[in-house]
Amino acid sequence: MLSIVILGTGNLAKHLFDAFLKAEDVHVAQVVGRNKEALSQFSEQCSVSNDFGTIADADVYLIAVKDDAIAEVASHLLTKKGVVAHTSGAIGLEVIQTDNKGVFYPLQTFTKGKPVSFQSIPICVEAESKQSLELLRTLARSISENVHHIDSEQRKKLHLAAVFVNNFTNYLYGIGESICLDEGLTFDLLKPLILETAEKVQHLTPKEAQTGPARRNDSESMEAHLELLNDEQHITLYKLLSQAIKKRHEEEL
Amino acid sequence: MLSIVILGTGNLAKHLFDAFLKAEDVHVAQVVGRNKEALSQFSEQCSVSNDFGTIADADVYLIAVKDDAIAEVASHLLTKKGVVAHTSGAIGLEVIQTDNKGVFYPLQTFTKGKPVSFQSIPICVEAESKQSLELLRTLARSISENVHHIDSEQRKKLHLAAVFVNNFTNYLYGIGESICLDEGLTFDLLKPLILETAEKVQHLTPKEAQTGPARRNDSESMEAHLELLNDEQHITLYKLLSQAIKKRHEEEL
Repeated sequence: MLSIVILGTGNLAKHLFDAFLKAEDVHVAQVVGRNKEALSQFSEQCSVSNDFGTIADADVYLIAVKDDAIAEVASHLLTKKGVVAHTSGAIGLEVIQTDNKGVFYPLQTFTKGKPVSFQSIPICVEAESKQSLELLRTLARSISENVHHIDSEQRKKLHLAAVFVNNFTNYLYGIGESICLDEGLTFDLLKPLILETAEKVQHLTPKEAQTGPARRNDSESMEAHLELLNDEQHITLYKLLSQAIKKRHEEEL
Repeated sequence: MLSIVILGTGNLAKHLFDAFLKAEDVHVAQVVGRNKEALSQFSEQCSVSNDFGTIADADVYLIAVKDDAIAEVASHLLTKKGVVAHTSGAIGLEVIQTDNKGVFYPLQTFTKGKPVSFQSIPICVEAESKQSLELLRTLARSISENVHHIDSEQRKKLHLAAVFVNNFTNYLYGIGESICLDEGLTFDLLKPLILETAEKVQHLTPKEAQTGPARRNDSESMEAHLELLNDEQHITLYKLLSQAIKKRHEEEL
């Protein structure tokens, strides 16, 4: 049985908590956070504390707080014997000052109130010592079948890649929505397409899945599209992305 | 019972054919196309012809060919009494010269060999006469529960919106993939995130779903990301999209 303490009470902390509650061989010993109201979500099922001076002993301490608060939270764990791991994609291992440092990064976007199955979520683990790495790996495997050893440099790149496929993609959804709404059309019309676009690259590479006027170098359609756009920023993005797609596929045309 | 003829043998023609074969009250009378080899996919289940001079009589003629071939295919249907409809998002109704003209546009991306359920796919119908519109609506309802009357101007905008959420989004997936591969990481790591990003906007608006450094105006993280990027075009896109997200959300910060 592995015991863990979760530090933090936000979105990721809650999703991790829910996942570990269901995991066999893992005991959530405590949830620690400053926000008393947020702690109340956990208090029925687990011991909670809003005092970083009274952190329970555990095998692993998972720090699930904002990036710029990790170092401060970790500073309360200097005398602990368990592994102290943060859960951030963008922050290196070195931000943690204890010897038993590690990273436990679930690569997913978490929405408040929307349950998610951890089973297929990649969990990227890293640690300074081999023993800590094995412990984090075991912990990760208790909730996911998709566990990877990824070092800090790789993880930062992965986090950057995630910005493109998640943050930026979501912004493109927003452009699609605004084009619809301007025309009195519901965004619902685009939703099946959005899902299928994501489904497609589960089996094909993005290059194989690419379609559209830019892919075919169909200048007439692209010019017609540009004439329909009013927003300067949408025009700039349309040109830039079309050019990039054209360039990527020109050898095939 | 409605009878239809499908003109064209490509990807969309095949997906429509498969859907209508299963539909009650619809009879696919014939598939017509130039490409004999492509016709063979249909010939076991349906009458086929590669001669545009011998098109069977039907209630509806669905033209599922490349945009620039629609007018020519329609020209073979001038004496027909049924409704002649094309299936393109980008082309107006007027390209068809017959009186009984219409549009039957399924808003989805179709992949060769990957079956798709039409049930939830939006089908956008348009026609010059009310009677033809009703006929197309009935036909659309035989395969989908998501049928909309959309005029040519709206449809062109919808098609443009689809380019943003499908073609451009897919290109961003490709950037994510290339960042992973450069680092020796598998694109598989990003796949659950890609799916969940698409799932998220099925229930939230893109604005509600937006996360990331630009959303939080976290300059430090954005600068760190820019330092990790080598490709000039990725840098330009990163800056442009981050700026746009920042601008969209600045009133909330």
